[in-house]
Amino acid sequence: MAGQVIKDLEQLLGAAKVVSGEALNDHYDHIWRMDVGLNAHGLVLPRSTADVSAVLKYCNDHDVSVVMHGGRTNLVGSTETDEKDLVISLEKMNAIEELDADSRTITVQAGVILENVQQAAKEQALLLPLNFGAKGSAQVGGILSTNAGGLRVIRYGMARELVLGLEVVLADGTVLTNLKKIIKDNSGYDLKQLFIGAEGTLGVITRAVLRLREAPRSRTSAYVGIDDYASVVRFLRFMDAGMAGTLSAYELIWKSTLVSMTTPPSSAKPPLPLDHAYYVLVEGLGSDQTADQARLEQLLEEAMAEGMIADAAFAFSESDFEWFWKIREDVHVIVSQMKHDQHFDISLPITLIGSVLDEITVELERVGGVEQVFVFGHVADGNIHLMIGKENESDALREQINDVVYGPLKAINGSVSAEHGIGVHKKQYLRLCRTDAEIALMKTVKRSLDPKNILNRGKILDL
Amino acid sequence: MAGQVIKDLEQLLGAAKVVSGEALNDHYDHIWRMDVGLNAHGLVLPRSTADVSAVLKYCNDHDVSVVMHGGRTNLVGSTETDEKDLVISLEKMNAIEELDADSRTITVQAGVILENVQQAAKEQALLLPLNFGAKGSAQVGGILSTNAGGLRVIRYGMARELVLGLEVVLADGTVLTNLKKIIKDNSGYDLKQLFIGAEGTLGVITRAVLRLREAPRSRTSAYVGIDDYASVVRFLRFMDAGMAGTLSAYELIWKSTLVSMTTPPSSAKPPLPLDHAYYVLVEGLGSDQTADQARLEQLLEEAMAEGMIADAAFAFSESDFEWFWKIREDVHVIVSQMKHDQHFDISLPITLIGSVLDEITVELERVGGVEQVFVFGHVADGNIHLMIGKENESDALREQINDVVYGPLKAINGSVSAEHGIGVHKKQYLRLCRTDAEIALMKTVKRSLDPKNILNRGKILDL
Repeated sequence: MAGQVIKDLEQLLGAAKVVSGEALNDHYDHIWRMDVGLNAHGLVLPRSTADVSAVLKYCNDHDVSVVMHGGRTNLVGSTETDEKDLVISLEKMNAIEELDADSRTITVQAGVILENVQQAAKEQALLLPLNFGAKGSAQVGGILSTNAGGLRVIRYGMARELVLGLEVVLADGTVLTNLKKIIKDNSGYDLKQLFIGAEGTLGVITRAVLRLREAPRSRTSAYVGIDDYASVVRFLRFMDAGMAGTLSAYELIWKSTLVSMTTPPSSAKPPLPLDHAYYVLVEGLGSDQTADQARLEQLLEEAMAEGMIADAAFAFSESDFEWFWKIREDVHVIVSQMKHDQHFDISLPITLIGSVLDEITVELERVGGVEQVFVFGHVADGNIHLMIGKENESDALREQINDVVYGPLKAINGSVSAEHGIGVHKKQYLRLCRTDAEIALMKTVKRSLDPKNILNRGKILDL
Repeated sequence: MAGQVIKDLEQLLGAAKVVSGEALNDHYDHIWRMDVGLNAHGLVLPRSTADVSAVLKYCNDHDVSVVMHGGRTNLVGSTETDEKDLVISLEKMNAIEELDADSRTITVQAGVILENVQQAAKEQALLLPLNFGAKGSAQVGGILSTNAGGLRVIRYGMARELVLGLEVVLADGTVLTNLKKIIKDNSGYDLKQLFIGAEGTLGVITRAVLRLREAPRSRTSAYVGIDDYASVVRFLRFMDAGMAGTLSAYELIWKSTLVSMTTPPSSAKPPLPLDHAYYVLVEGLGSDQTADQARLEQLLEEAMAEGMIADAAFAFSESDFEWFWKIREDVHVIVSQMKHDQHFDISLPITLIGSVLDEITVELERVGGVEQVFVFGHVADGNIHLMIGKENESDALREQINDVVYGPLKAINGSVSAEHGIGVHKKQYLRLCRTDAEIALMKTVKRSLDPKNILNRGKILDL
């Protein structure tokens, strides 16, 4: 039977698009494990939507379970496979089909790498606002399936907000094409919303029309030291109102985390004296460098006069911008200081972040085996990342840490996953932030779109 | 049997919450027909989510068809009823449950009127950006079910983008509560997206958490005259880049329409000489009145020097703002000039609007019985409104006009409904902008969420 599936697929698509047997060792399921061969029944590399449709129709008819692969940078195990899975990778469907500068849209195949979309937009003085660390590997199909976020959600929204049109192949091979360039369309159900963030469990995204924005012409940035959490919230409102539409990042770093980010082994210098409880990295993207810089300085002066902030340092040059942002983005500096690490991507109401993270940190420090706790995040979105250093990789310790971090979320209407998704790693914690009725409805939706449960089976939900 | 349903509901909810018989004459199905009594089997006025759940469970068990009523300002017949329908109105569920100024969220029951939400936000120096003509009547439940748009979508998005949390009652009475205040939540399927814009066919929205923005501290506005459509598109990009996040409206009015809006019987004066092909009303919402006004003037000077625009008039005072916006918003002036009127709310790619609307206008003028054609719209969103004056209300003329306006949309990936929805009036045109596969999937979704088809039966889709 096993051999038959591969033979059938070779006949359906042509042998060049099908990988099996020993050749699977040249592929992998995660970018962090590129040295480990792909554990799968086979891998297909479609060249067109019609190819994807033919494969899915075959798999649905023959009960073959399918796992989708994009750039394989997923952080929750959504691309994990076993020897029964057929992997579909859209890496060969990597064409930018059209950049329409006047409509400010880009139409791409799902296998296009994020950085290439960013670059194409830039050449037309446009911006694809989505940006995050894995941009050199992550592909559009995976990005939309994960509803990725990143650093500028406060200004431009999540991936969901960037999608105008979508083409999706359903489990039975049906092709849903809606590649519109229009911003408003209330003609019946907005079906694309079903597939964005569904981690490949409801359909396979093959093409998309993404909305582009005007490229900013100015950039301003500052680090600010703040002594109490209430002022972090107050300062956010103050800056958002004062920067009127140009505030593009508001990143919070806890003191002890900034210390680790800016003292050896880190090569980065601290941007400010390390004696404040919190540090905020503010960014504005505007249209007039001189005026915007003056405005930022004026606002921070006012904030200081009103006692909201205790200190501030401005970026004045390209090298300052690099320095400021490298501190925030270079998580390797932190990871390198931990024996083993466990990281989190939680959401909670912004007003509660200060007290809840204090409690979580105290609790974590009481857990035997926890060695370090680093906290930072996109605080304006209510999205906090924790990186926890620990002495071993035991399941018991992992679960103990999960319980401490996830424990408070249910009561305060938080989420166990702000950006990364559920996949397999967070499946058992889904019920901490979604009700039984919600999970039941998710299952109803899954069953109605993928009745044979062939698509990313066991990811997000067990039926 | 008929009497039994009312008796059962009276028992279930208490008689005070159930209206039937003669008393239905004190109610209505549309704000334009307040003098016509409600044609329905009965009307229930729940006071709580539990009430809504009990009614729906009863209706589902007993195959009673249900129509939802909010402010009854819908423009596509979504609130129409017949004598078999039970109407559920949430007008008594009109509490603002919480305004959390620090989280910048407002939690409301679905029966709250838009203007009341706007007012509550304003008192905290916050803004609910959604705004349109019917704000004094439209209720949150209906607004979200229609995914309403309005004048500031370019800056703040549609209603969909304002929803953080939602409570919905499904057809069988199941209550789905997700009233989170968080911006990012990738914990499984984003179920709220299913109900936003579904026109009450998939569930009944009972409560919502809406995202608020900082209230702007400055407002600038100008009318601009432009001689060719390509410059309208070029000027949009120029202004969007130049105003960097503060551009809040970019409304296009065709010359002959502006003439009708600003000459008697209209009492408004024209803001500029009436000799340009197109007029754009630009608005900026910022933080510094002096600097923002200077910036707008500088940008328009540059645009004029580059030949993008031919003329410009600025608003300098509150009365100027009123004057400028009354011209754009006072559609009654236009309606009063028509014997009978038919209006449209279409979307198309922004680059094609000039040529396609020219063609449509020429075609319409050839239709016997068409007397006037007025064109204006939210051009930055690709959303154009046509108002067509005609000599009679015959079905034949209506359909001829529909065919001319909707005819070109399929080939150019447009939409028959940008903002208003499908309801019953546009149902036969749905297939002009959605594929058979899409419509089939809409039916699959409808059947899986409302298997007995009790919710707004026959709206959007016929099963």
